[in-house]
Amino acid sequence: MESDLYGTTPRTTLRRHAERGSHARSDVHAILDAGLVAHVGFVLDGAPAVLPMAYARRDETVYLHGAAANRMLGLLAGGAPVAVTVTLLDGLVFARTSFRHSMNFRSVVVFGEGRDVTDPDEKRRALDAIVDHIAEGRSAELRPATPKEIAATRVIAVQIREASAKVRSGPPTHAEEDLALEVWAGEVPMRLAPGEPVPEPGLAPETPLSASIQRRIGLC
Amino acid sequence: MESDLYGTTPRTTLRRHAERGSHARSDVHAILDAGLVAHVGFVLDGAPAVLPMAYARRDETVYLHGAAANRMLGLLAGGAPVAVTVTLLDGLVFARTSFRHSMNFRSVVVFGEGRDVTDPDEKRRALDAIVDHIAEGRSAELRPATPKEIAATRVIAVQIREASAKVRSGPPTHAEEDLALEVWAGEVPMRLAPGEPVPEPGLAPETPLSASIQRRIGLC
Repeated sequence: MESDLYGTTPRTTLRRHAERGSHARSDVHAILDAGLVAHVGFVLDGAPAVLPMAYARRDETVYLHGAAANRMLGLLAGGAPVAVTVTLLDGLVFARTSFRHSMNFRSVVVFGEGRDVTDPDEKRRALDAIVDHIAEGRSAELRPATPKEIAATRVIAVQIREASAKVRSGPPTHAEEDLALEVWAGEVPMRLAPGEPVPEPGLAPETPLSASIQRRIGLC
Repeated sequence: MESDLYGTTPRTTLRRHAERGSHARSDVHAILDAGLVAHVGFVLDGAPAVLPMAYARRDETVYLHGAAANRMLGLLAGGAPVAVTVTLLDGLVFARTSFRHSMNFRSVVVFGEGRDVTDPDEKRRALDAIVDHIAEGRSAELRPATPKEIAATRVIAVQIREASAKVRSGPPTHAEEDLALEVWAGEVPMRLAPGEPVPEPGLAPETPLSASIQRRIGLC
């Protein structure tokens, strides 16, 4: 049976604010599933680079995708080490001193290596997962991807072997003597909120808003 | 006189969707100033790592901060190469095919090296800038940081020498033959929205919401 915790190495051992951290699979999965954009780090000529990407998790794999000619994905296809970080900003923490200002957030860092997904079935499942991550059930509302579309896309799998989650929530913390300072302190919650859907020009006016999109924006 | 454009090297030369990219200082600055969280990439034992951090820009410098004992900041203090990426998600792009699904976003990648900020005046200005980036004018509402607080904090400066911005906006694009597919397509705008401020337990009930926070949440 698989452990409920990811193994740790020096780079995933929680140091600062260890009480905010977790190696539990369930915590790591929940944050990965709640995010929309991953920040993907890789090493190019010895220097770090970080790019935002769409993604999806299926079981213990994070899938990334992009154009077959994408340079970073080419690097990852060759098995290069990669870091996949997903962060959800939950609030701004205003304290009575600048020192104690903070943010409430949930974040995950996954460390792994890229694997080029070449099996057409896995590739198709991964691409469906990435679309369904944007709005659950979306892929079933669309025609299947064509072989040409699949060939034009590169899919990279990153197995989640080493990962850690970090969460901060709640009000600011203060040194006892600063509680006499008379200035507003507390949290301003933040959330990524959907606006009114904008149909594309040329869409037949009677086209109903798809169920997956209704769910994504909280209409049902 | 400084150029209006950042210089390019192979890693910042725009390739895929070059029409979405920019090396203009004004574009790079606007996106950095609009974000709240940076994803900071560095190389640890040859492998990439990416962590979310608060930040601020002043002129051509991005400032990061954290506990003096923070391992990544220690690495950057020694001049290690760093990538600072800021991404704003502006919308989900639903197309008539899975292949054309996308996201609208604004992002910047800054490539540079860390510099340990040791001058107390620059350090104080940088810490004020990071608090003011969360809510403009906040630092002036607070007592100045104490020498002890400043000593407990490490500030890293990254000079913006190499940077590129990328922006996608608008509806999906479709292959001509897919426009006959009858499924909803368009954009769902997304924005990071503030909620109702939550005062910390113990705050005197008559304490007014600070002007900087009122501005941040759009009350004035």
